[in-house]
Order: sequence, then structure tokens, then C-alpha cells
Amino acid sequence: MVVLRQEIGDVLRDARTEQGRTLREVSKRARVSLGYLSEVERGQKEASSELLQSICAALDVPLSQILREVSDRVALAEDLPASRMTVPDTVPESLASRVRHQIYTSAL
Amino acid sequence: MVVLRQEIGDVLRDARTEQGRTLREVSKRARVSLGYLSEVERGQKEASSELLQSICAALDVPLSQILREVSDRVALAEDLPASRMTVPDTVPESLASRVRHQIYTSAL
Repeated sequence: MVVLRQEIGDVLRDARTEQGRTLREVSKRARVSLGYLSEVERGQKEASSELLQSICAALDVPLSQILREVSDRVALAEDLPASRMTVPDTVPESLASRVRHQIYTSAL
Repeated sequence: MVVLRQEIGDVLRDARTEQGRTLREVSKRARVSLGYLSEVERGQKEASSELLQSICAALDVPLSQILREVSDRVALAEDLPASRMTVPDTVPESLASRVRHQIYTSAL
């Protein structure tokens, strides 16, 4: 099943890394701890509305654009047969996330 | 400033009322308390990823569609001059929300 906070985390991390910016830099500008931002990016913590707005502002990306990308990713996951999205439990989550990302990318 | 949980709440409430369904019915199907669902719809509580997924399932609306509508509303709010979105503090929030909704609707 698609988990929204993981999609949000992936989109936020992609936006940050595409800009070549560090967790430290963005967390400082968003006034959130580095650890918390990292957890949000990994889909381990739900970001509140205010925090998400702060992170978007720190990334200079409109919230609506982040949401649009999240919506597109979720739509893709909803359409994909579950079997294609399944990664065995024995695969570490950090790698599973990358595999899912490749499945997304190849499907786009 | 646009607050994400309020936009999510508005979209969820619109989806429910368009189907002519009650808070009681949807909350029961989503296995969430009526009070909590009501607070989510009014933008007073952040819905977790899992709860949002449950509410969408109870409404038979894909999560991606809800997110797309939220994204569109947020984009509209980002483009609108702040002055047009400002409703005096003396106006009760329940009415202010309706006024903002009318501004959205007329701008769409």
C-alpha cells in the first residue's frame, strides 16, 4: 500500500538533492532539526502542515508543486499492480525505497 | 498563509457531502471516531498518512485524486493576492472557511 508520508519524503529529498543542497543547509533555513528533516525525508515522521510549508519555503519550491508531484506518484502507485511494487522484506528499506523509485521512474 | 490541513479537510468534506453521506457513516467505515473525522474536515487535526488513506477508502475516492484537488486549491491560494484571501478575525472560522471557499470557486 502506498504510504503518503513516504511519497512526500521522497519528493522533498529529490527536490533538495536536485538543488545540490545538504540536509544541514535546508534544516537550518526551515528552522527544523537536521534529524527531524532526515526522518521526514525517509518517510518515518509525518510533517505537520506548518513544517511542510517551512521546508517548501526553505527549498524555494511552492507547496502546490510538491503536492502535485506527490499526487502523480501516488496515482502511479495506485495504478501499478501490487506485485510490481512489492520488494521482499529481506531488502533493507533504504534500498527498497530506491528500487521503488526506479520502478516509478521507468513507468513515468 | 495557506494551511495544508485546512485544504485537505475542505476537500474531504466536499467529497463526502457531494456523495450525500454523513460524518457518522464515513467515520464508521473508516474506523475513526466521528469527532476526529469532524476535526480533520475542519482542518483542526492533521490526519496521519494511514488515517487519510482510510478516509479515502471509506469515500471510495483514490488518495491521488484528493491530493490532486488539494494541490489545485493550494496553487490557487498561492497565486491569489493575500488581500483577497484575508477574512477579518471578527468573522467566525466556520463562516470564513465558506467565504474562502467561495473565493476559490469563483476563481476556478
